[in-house]
Amino acid sequence: MLQFHVEKTDSRARLGTLQLPHGTVHTPCFMPVGTQGTVKTLTPEEVAGAGAEIIVCNTYHLYLRPGHKRVQAAGGLSRFMGWNRPILTDSGGFQVYSLAALTRVNDEGAEFQSHVDGSRHLFTPELVVEIQEALGSDIAMCLDECPPYPVSRPVAEAAAARTALWAGGCEAAKQPDTNLFGIVQGATFADLREQSARALVALGLPGYAIGGLCLGEPSEVTYEMVERVTALLPVDRPRYLMGAGYPEDIIAAARLGVDMFDCVLPTRNGRTGTAFTSCGRVVIRNARHADEPAPLDDACDCYTCRTFSRAYLRHLFVVGEALGPKLLTLHNVRFFQRLMLGIRTAIEQGRFESWSSGFLSCYQSDSETTR
Amino acid sequence: MLQFHVEKTDSRARLGTLQLPHGTVHTPCFMPVGTQGTVKTLTPEEVAGAGAEIIVCNTYHLYLRPGHKRVQAAGGLSRFMGWNRPILTDSGGFQVYSLAALTRVNDEGAEFQSHVDGSRHLFTPELVVEIQEALGSDIAMCLDECPPYPVSRPVAEAAAARTALWAGGCEAAKQPDTNLFGIVQGATFADLREQSARALVALGLPGYAIGGLCLGEPSEVTYEMVERVTALLPVDRPRYLMGAGYPEDIIAAARLGVDMFDCVLPTRNGRTGTAFTSCGRVVIRNARHADEPAPLDDACDCYTCRTFSRAYLRHLFVVGEALGPKLLTLHNVRFFQRLMLGIRTAIEQGRFESWSSGFLSCYQSDSETTR
Repeated sequence: MLQFHVEKTDSRARLGTLQLPHGTVHTPCFMPVGTQGTVKTLTPEEVAGAGAEIIVCNTYHLYLRPGHKRVQAAGGLSRFMGWNRPILTDSGGFQVYSLAALTRVNDEGAEFQSHVDGSRHLFTPELVVEIQEALGSDIAMCLDECPPYPVSRPVAEAAAARTALWAGGCEAAKQPDTNLFGIVQGATFADLREQSARALVALGLPGYAIGGLCLGEPSEVTYEMVERVTALLPVDRPRYLMGAGYPEDIIAAARLGVDMFDCVLPTRNGRTGTAFTSCGRVVIRNARHADEPAPLDDACDCYTCRTFSRAYLRHLFVVGEALGPKLLTLHNVRFFQRLMLGIRTAIEQGRFESWSSGFLSCYQSDSETTR
Repeated sequence: MLQFHVEKTDSRARLGTLQLPHGTVHTPCFMPVGTQGTVKTLTPEEVAGAGAEIIVCNTYHLYLRPGHKRVQAAGGLSRFMGWNRPILTDSGGFQVYSLAALTRVNDEGAEFQSHVDGSRHLFTPELVVEIQEALGSDIAMCLDECPPYPVSRPVAEAAAARTALWAGGCEAAKQPDTNLFGIVQGATFADLREQSARALVALGLPGYAIGGLCLGEPSEVTYEMVERVTALLPVDRPRYLMGAGYPEDIIAAARLGVDMFDCVLPTRNGRTGTAFTSCGRVVIRNARHADEPAPLDDACDCYTCRTFSRAYLRHLFVVGEALGPKLLTLHNVRFFQRLMLGIRTAIEQGRFESWSSGFLSCYQSDSETTR
């Protein structure tokens, strides 16, 4: 089972350690996303070298391909993918809504058609727990109902209620040593969020996630919901804000006491040619980089920044070479790990506020793109 | 200038060292292809880690994008691409025939339309030397006329004659310290090959390539042409068979005294899912690998083979993850370097014949595909 210790706090921000079956994670942490059992374009050696201690993989994708029983027979997901470190698996609830053709949802579960071959499947609370246990996840997530933003109050209310019902089903179905996190829903309605949080906390789970945010709602709304929910979550359990990837959002949520983050932003943006740097985002295809001998980020210690000029990286993207997306992904993954290291160091030193305003004043000074 | 020493021979096979401005190369060598200034999917660190001491890049591609003057301003190609080791650049002659729309060829040069944007360009002997000198190539190749196989005798004769003419132009245009190799043409006509070799040898160049082979002609013809040509080349100069990539062909040509090889085969096949192993080729998408815990090649020491099962590699290809092509490329590049190490060790120990029959009897025992 997991062990979580809050080592230090700075106002509401928390520095912690999270001990999991495959290793220890320092929080606040950012978990790169390895949807299909690989952090896109990177070797597990590179992901670990960038400083990541835990990654997120996906129940929905791995259930469809290669199949959880195949992964189980191969010794579990960590071993299968050569990442001998902690893995959190999302439950598939979000993907059923965003990727598959959803055919029917009721209290039993969510029926959907695979985005791969159109085959029909039913995700029940019991099945998603079984899948995640077969994968050998360090942290399994409850099945949740996560309607896309914006959503009406009646839909949000029903989704939150069903999410709580399913959480009970997951909890009842799991093996004793499975670390199961609940997911707070309730969209952008503060009272529904609080109701959802209370229902999940009553289950006494070892950790809690906040789902259904960072889906396009205004930042102030995100932060308000996070604040309302974290106030109700037990202080001795890790808190995970699902899908938060903009540095501004991570810093704001860490300030409110969130411990865990994940997002496809560093990997997806890396593949499409946008780098996160200490001075903001850089769109590497921009012509102004064509003869630029400087690295992406002077302040970065990653292989990409130690080795290549912006001019070379731009060339790779312009001619369509696979090395370009890989090198920017590597840099971005390292950037987010350095961000979390900055946050943790600031909390430890009791200067989270001054650190974050310093970081953001540089980060927001020269972005080529706005959020 | 380059220095080449034949350290040892075993019948006609030669063990040598080739000293170049950016480092020393042990021959017989295989040069991975980095057409656009990157060995596709791999970092330069990975290419070097696989044992490669020299790579081939392409004048035609780099002239079009990012432009040789831009590379020169960045400190030359080795520095630009983060590969601080020797680079041989092909002259562009082959690409003008195979990729571009060729609009006119006469003694002045080859006029073509770019495959990128249709713009018109003229490659002259003088220009291809200028480009390669701007790139800072350790070895520059003469402009050659390389018609596709099969070719009639009159066309082959004219191409060989023009190639010899252009070689004179290149030689006259080059800077004193440029290492310029000639390219023997003549298609599959032994007397034209010999005539071409004699014409080039008369120029006293520091090395000689055999071009226009490995284009689909039968192996016996390839080997016969190589044998005819090498018999006429000076023993103290390196010999380079362009485009030979099948292990059988490399071994046969090394036996005939060829010192240098290059081909897109390890990288291209890696990207499309075919691995070279000591027991033959493996098509990783094959269903029989779906639950296979063994690595690609038990005998291989590469990162891919040390870390991943065939089952995982197959999964990456089935779901279309970029890590799959990269891991197979890394393995294939290492496979070819291990092949060359095997050849060099066998020559050094005077047992090239027994080594090659042992290697081939294993390699040809269980291929999933035939050549």
